[in-house]
Amino acid sequence: MRELEIIAKLQRRFGKVSPSVEIGIGDDAAVVASGGGMRWALTTDALVEGVHFDMSRCTPRQLGYKSLAVNLSDLAAMGALPRHVLVALALPPTVTEEVVDGIFDGIAALAAEHRVSVVGGNITRSPVLAVTITALGELSGPALERGGGRPGDRLMVTGDVGSSAIGHQLLASGRTGFDDLERDLVRRHLEPEPRVAAGQALRLIASAGIDISDGLAQDAGHLARASRCGARIELARLPLSPAYHGLTRHLDDPWLPALAGGEDYELLLAVPPERVRTAGHAASAAGVVLHEIGELVQGSGVVVIDEAGAERPAPAGWEHF
Amino acid sequence: MRELEIIAKLQRRFGKVSPSVEIGIGDDAAVVASGGGMRWALTTDALVEGVHFDMSRCTPRQLGYKSLAVNLSDLAAMGALPRHVLVALALPPTVTEEVVDGIFDGIAALAAEHRVSVVGGNITRSPVLAVTITALGELSGPALERGGGRPGDRLMVTGDVGSSAIGHQLLASGRTGFDDLERDLVRRHLEPEPRVAAGQALRLIASAGIDISDGLAQDAGHLARASRCGARIELARLPLSPAYHGLTRHLDDPWLPALAGGEDYELLLAVPPERVRTAGHAASAAGVVLHEIGELVQGSGVVVIDEAGAERPAPAGWEHF
Repeated sequence: MRELEIIAKLQRRFGKVSPSVEIGIGDDAAVVASGGGMRWALTTDALVEGVHFDMSRCTPRQLGYKSLAVNLSDLAAMGALPRHVLVALALPPTVTEEVVDGIFDGIAALAAEHRVSVVGGNITRSPVLAVTITALGELSGPALERGGGRPGDRLMVTGDVGSSAIGHQLLASGRTGFDDLERDLVRRHLEPEPRVAAGQALRLIASAGIDISDGLAQDAGHLARASRCGARIELARLPLSPAYHGLTRHLDDPWLPALAGGEDYELLLAVPPERVRTAGHAASAAGVVLHEIGELVQGSGVVVIDEAGAERPAPAGWEHF
Repeated sequence: MRELEIIAKLQRRFGKVSPSVEIGIGDDAAVVASGGGMRWALTTDALVEGVHFDMSRCTPRQLGYKSLAVNLSDLAAMGALPRHVLVALALPPTVTEEVVDGIFDGIAALAAEHRVSVVGGNITRSPVLAVTITALGELSGPALERGGGRPGDRLMVTGDVGSSAIGHQLLASGRTGFDDLERDLVRRHLEPEPRVAAGQALRLIASAGIDISDGLAQDAGHLARASRCGARIELARLPLSPAYHGLTRHLDDPWLPALAGGEDYELLLAVPPERVRTAGHAASAAGVVLHEIGELVQGSGVVVIDEAGAERPAPAGWEHF
């Protein structure tokens, strides 16, 4: 069974929810009502050894950091303010104290940066190392959902795309002696920066939002489908690392890392045309650059426009499962 | 590293928390303040194949059920009303649709019984099957903590102890043709009933509470230590299944399943002497029998009194890690 099939099953199965559940399964995070008009955004995400990371290619600290970062990114995509997390560790019997300390250090560093409290956890033995984090974020108003976009809304993305995928390839190549640009790409893969401030700044400006974990094209598809639209992405407008073209030249499809690499943990937003400037300013104030990369259109599916203005098929995203 | 060492490390590391965190790491669940004077109890717990269950000895439905039950039991121990859960599934590539459906069926059945909403989830590939659930429970007043007991408080337990451990031994024996009592013990192991109603009924009556997951003696030790007391447990007063003595006769220490078997998922409570009757009535109204099994005393540690009135050493509990 494929990941998306299982999620669809989960959604069908647990779709009927109580009135206090404003957003259930199927967005970046769930949203539940709480007392005093407050809402909580809830999300859970896991990193598993051999699937999401390789302990020979990252430090325990980086693993801890990233485990929390991917969860905060989901909260960022809802425009929520991260507040509390629970950490479930699955540890092989051979795990050393150094590894456990490193994981905690990485979680603690990012938690401190975002003033998030680690309030609970669970430790279990397991044949493979895995870190499953659940994060709760506060919402003082409606969440930024995937499904609020309309045809004509501009698609905008924070930061750049494809850097994490190229960083991953660099790591996997076994090559050493990276230059500064390459080291930055590796860091982007191992220590993605969740766009928490941008998500909050854009919550009431954008019409829809998602974080890019499965790859730009696939996540654009998720946003477009939830918004009952199609999406058009223009390759010529994609924000890329200065090292991008040099490092992807040898690929059969040099656009694959940017379109389908995944793990960018940038925000992809739909923004009504009249709010594009406001969105740019709000993102700048939150410390990130926002680039317009396409638009939502009537219809369905994702169309990619190449640099010559021709349509090309959208690649599939990364299948976690 | 042992599980309790890692939890102690987690507690030291993440002990400094924000004012909105009323209870952090170290109790059955965390408690955070929410809007309008409301509190949420938060807990996470994982079941891992080969560590907590064996797919050749349980159905996928039982696995799903128990994954949720162990989390609801933690909320019950705080006196919280379960409301929302997130389900993180780690699935091997060979997993069948039947297994996934069964797990969801089991979760759905217990969720429906307790009117809990499954609001989110995550699916990842993994070499071993694991279900990690995070549960949120509502508290309309202060939580029932581990640390509120005082010397002289009576120790009381819901249901009986040791049934799950004997059920586990029966399953592991490979024997078939169980009689009704034996089948009930197996069911107690595979489908524990979280004491949610009892936890809520006793929240303001008991002085302290914990759920018995690591074994009566060890969890009594946790409660006593948090309450800065010692604990005395009288074997002659332990509530046991009618089949208990027959099925433990062959063991070197026939009391081991009751004292250290673990996974009872009953509530162990400290109750001030003047409230013992009230506690019994409240538990009855919530559908469970409450038995007095000992008391909190000045000092520290757990002392077990045998049927002849002599002290015997308390056995260690089950080490998950």
